[in-house]
Amino acid sequence: MGIIVQKFGGTSVANADKIRRAATRAVEAFKKGNQVVAVASARGQQTDELIADAMELNPNPPRREMDMLLSTGEQQTVSLFAMALDAMGQKAISFNGSQIRMLTDGVHTRARIISIDADVIRRKLDTGHIVIVAGFQGVDAEQDITTLGRGGSDTSAVALAAALKADVCEIYTDVDGIYTSDPRKFPGAVKMARISYDEMLELASLGAGVMHSRSIEFGKKYGVPIHVRSSLNNEPGTLITHEVPQMEGILVSGATIQKDLAKLSLIGVDNKPGNAAKIFSHLAKAKVIVNDIIQTEISAEKANISFTVGSGDLADARKAIDEISEEVHCQGVFIRDDIAEVSVVGVGMRSHYGVAEKMFKALADAQVNIDSITTSEIRISCIVSLADGEKALVAVCEAFELDKPASERKQPK
Amino acid sequence: MGIIVQKFGGTSVANADKIRRAATRAVEAFKKGNQVVAVASARGQQTDELIADAMELNPNPPRREMDMLLSTGEQQTVSLFAMALDAMGQKAISFNGSQIRMLTDGVHTRARIISIDADVIRRKLDTGHIVIVAGFQGVDAEQDITTLGRGGSDTSAVALAAALKADVCEIYTDVDGIYTSDPRKFPGAVKMARISYDEMLELASLGAGVMHSRSIEFGKKYGVPIHVRSSLNNEPGTLITHEVPQMEGILVSGATIQKDLAKLSLIGVDNKPGNAAKIFSHLAKAKVIVNDIIQTEISAEKANISFTVGSGDLADARKAIDEISEEVHCQGVFIRDDIAEVSVVGVGMRSHYGVAEKMFKALADAQVNIDSITTSEIRISCIVSLADGEKALVAVCEAFELDKPASERKQPK
Repeated sequence: MGIIVQKFGGTSVANADKIRRAATRAVEAFKKGNQVVAVASARGQQTDELIADAMELNPNPPRREMDMLLSTGEQQTVSLFAMALDAMGQKAISFNGSQIRMLTDGVHTRARIISIDADVIRRKLDTGHIVIVAGFQGVDAEQDITTLGRGGSDTSAVALAAALKADVCEIYTDVDGIYTSDPRKFPGAVKMARISYDEMLELASLGAGVMHSRSIEFGKKYGVPIHVRSSLNNEPGTLITHEVPQMEGILVSGATIQKDLAKLSLIGVDNKPGNAAKIFSHLAKAKVIVNDIIQTEISAEKANISFTVGSGDLADARKAIDEISEEVHCQGVFIRDDIAEVSVVGVGMRSHYGVAEKMFKALADAQVNIDSITTSEIRISCIVSLADGEKALVAVCEAFELDKPASERKQPK
Repeated sequence: MGIIVQKFGGTSVANADKIRRAATRAVEAFKKGNQVVAVASARGQQTDELIADAMELNPNPPRREMDMLLSTGEQQTVSLFAMALDAMGQKAISFNGSQIRMLTDGVHTRARIISIDADVIRRKLDTGHIVIVAGFQGVDAEQDITTLGRGGSDTSAVALAAALKADVCEIYTDVDGIYTSDPRKFPGAVKMARISYDEMLELASLGAGVMHSRSIEFGKKYGVPIHVRSSLNNEPGTLITHEVPQMEGILVSGATIQKDLAKLSLIGVDNKPGNAAKIFSHLAKAKVIVNDIIQTEISAEKANISFTVGSGDLADARKAIDEISEEVHCQGVFIRDDIAEVSVVGVGMRSHYGVAEKMFKALADAQVNIDSITTSEIRISCIVSLADGEKALVAVCEAFELDKPASERKQPK
């Protein structure tokens, strides 16, 4: 008995049957006495088709016009969704981003939300409507249509849930929750009942891929419980929420592997203030997204600086480094593109010793050599050879008993 | 050197090549020193496809949602059009109906325009942009998206031309102008250089089909010259404009045939005040659009009332008449659905005798029997048997020399 925001991605509204199924789910929540807002993405491959239409006319289309074009995909879905609800005898109304004043900045194709006029939606909820809102899109102060970029519909949904002070934001997807690891790589992986925003942020940025990190950041900032669940069944999925005390008993919540990585090492860089800044600001100018950075001193005057980038950014990164290497007196550049990064994530590791040791031992027992290591407060990542990647992931999953529900694992000392 | 509004219909923007061709035309007008506004429809069959998508979910979709859905078609076209212009190095910006505040009433799927915020467009014209506006759509006072119904994009274009005080509204289409008659039926038909709004209104409502009558009414009301021309070549088409003195020298501008008609005759209706009103208000309630009405007295107490409707409305009309016939003491209903209506139109007939006589003689010479006749100030229509229809049209065209330019025809006395 409250307000529920339900988000349906492109695969969940790809055709008439799937739209009907999503509409049925909204009606079920409504009939339980809730006020229901559905947020929908463009149908199936439609966004890709529109991008292809654009490219045929202009390989470098103006971003404003791209937003004008792509926003039609979600608008079509929400009107069809409202028609499906009407056919079920359910009062319903659809809105695009402009109509609910989803105000964003003017950065086309990756705009950020400034505010939402929740009153428009509340008035319709209060008169018994299910409200369907086009995800992914907003409007800037000039009335120009904007889009929110990758994962935009998730962000729309969580932002709406925050604005409406909804009880929960349900993300319907083709997986039934967040798993301790990728079941295709570690078949024993089990679904987590709960996970903290922070852990999910580490998992999202590490390629677990279910939700984009922006929407999780939004959820964390405004305290919106996010329920990731299957669009195909009624089983509970995984609740992303603030940390709760029992979570701390769990050393490691999940383990991931990220491939499509490359590591660049600058050997013998002059170890003086400002050199690292020079290198990374030059990479930023080249629009290269840098993942982890490792710097090690090799002498009083020299250091090695390594960093990882997505494989797609390798060419740009290499070019940027070639331009800057002389200025920082780099003695050589060493590149590896045959690597994988295996990570464990868990809020429990904050207050417990032995997680790193356990991970390294698991890798050693599996005969996996570690190229390099980075850590955050709730994450440990090891770079290993690509060939060893999946073996390493399985070894780590087994060591941390990620094939068992959290309550059945051995408790940390 | 002025402001030109160019309207491109669905077939003129059906694919990337056609959009590029339309964009090229806009650039040509711009390079001649004009400010250019392009109004575009949805691409090709897209509106039909969206309607099919809707019907799959709801055979009777809410009109508000239908407008929400269909308006995306034009929005896609205008953004792609702007991208095509950008690829040619031309500054361009697209707007949907909401962005230019094309304010309409709230009658979804057939809304009427109330006002347009021309300033939004003027600011962009003044900074060297070609402005592309989504046709067919507006927004009501509630921010709900509306559409203008059949011929809506023509209406958008003419309304924009009126609001901008444009020099001309060019309608690009797949015919190269308005002909004295349908060239498929009277091969000698010639293109008219000019035609008055009033004549075009008669021709439009008679099924000449090039432009919808609403847009012509708009043009007449605001004095917008409308240039109907081919999207495939640069030849001048036909200018629809106010009557000019030389037009009056032309007895008959054009001749048309309308098939898909049915005629219902109510025999022996009580000839007393209010009976005709009862019949036609009942038909209006049944949403039947009545074309011509003929009433003839057959005695002091009784009259025959006949009217024509489109074939598609015949079943509804028949049902409505059956419901009302007892109340008006109708002695019998007689229906013909094997008819055609042949009409001649011309402002010249206002001030000249002999047009009707010439038409009837032409039909008699061609052995065509006339079922009934209706006239307006600038039109004479004869109902004939469907089998005689095309023969009748040719006879009339030849009698009025519609195979010659107006200047070469015999002048009326």
